[in-house]
Amino acid sequence: MRFREADATDWPKIWPFWHRIVAEGETYMLPDVGPDEAARYWMLPPPAKVYVLEEDGRVLASALLKPNQPAGGDHVANASFMVDPDQAGRGLGRRLAECVLTAAGEAGYLAMQFNAVVETNTHAVRLWKSLGFEVLATVPDAFRHPRHGLVGAHIMRRAL
Amino acid sequence: MRFREADATDWPKIWPFWHRIVAEGETYMLPDVGPDEAARYWMLPPPAKVYVLEEDGRVLASALLKPNQPAGGDHVANASFMVDPDQAGRGLGRRLAECVLTAAGEAGYLAMQFNAVVETNTHAVRLWKSLGFEVLATVPDAFRHPRHGLVGAHIMRRAL
Repeated sequence: MRFREADATDWPKIWPFWHRIVAEGETYMLPDVGPDEAARYWMLPPPAKVYVLEEDGRVLASALLKPNQPAGGDHVANASFMVDPDQAGRGLGRRLAECVLTAAGEAGYLAMQFNAVVETNTHAVRLWKSLGFEVLATVPDAFRHPRHGLVGAHIMRRAL
Repeated sequence: MRFREADATDWPKIWPFWHRIVAEGETYMLPDVGPDEAARYWMLPPPAKVYVLEEDGRVLASALLKPNQPAGGDHVANASFMVDPDQAGRGLGRRLAECVLTAAGEAGYLAMQFNAVVETNTHAVRLWKSLGFEVLATVPDAFRHPRHGLVGAHIMRRAL
């Protein structure tokens, strides 16, 4: 299995599971749009970087690493992670996150911040906590969950 | 004095003080770029709305109101405010904020959230608290202040 930076030619391999996760609507505050518009949310130009986990030519997961804010805030990273649901249970989320945390540190970021981890996404919350992230605050009613209604969103952070 | 929605023709009147505030670099995590690129940060298309406070044909202040997140998070508003420093002391920030809070409620937003209020910007922090915002968390070292070095940034929120 290989962790590497993605380029534009990877998007058609990322899009199917990216879309499946976004369309489900339970974890990400991203619009359920077509592949071209979706690429504008994920395949961002530098200083953002897009990564993939690849196995036998198949893209299993992807991550987006970017400054959480521009200018005087660009020493804090933000990252998003999408793992193909068909690959669940293999620990790919943790593996990808560990690679991206290392890459973020090497890129000179001093911390990583997540702005909206849906609190019902307990799998992700547990993963981030195990990787050293702490919940700075939980914004009440920040997300309209398709099954649970209004739920909170955690703001999480760790130093790098 | 008039509070109204802005259109593209207002940008040349907003830009001089917008640029002065951003170039100072003490309050906003926005890049100090030229007017055309800066317009892409401020004059956003719907669902964002841009407002101005105008007096005798002169634009004194401007605000940007937009969803803090897309999709399942777009019931929470985010707003940014720029008041011409030459107009300081007239209470225009408060006046503009009150108008924008009303507009946000009328637009159907359920809450307003600020993601990064620089903690050394005590004038703004005091204003937001007096308008009912609370500090959910202070992200440590989130902003490189040109005089103070790394300082924290408050995440603030109020219901509408």
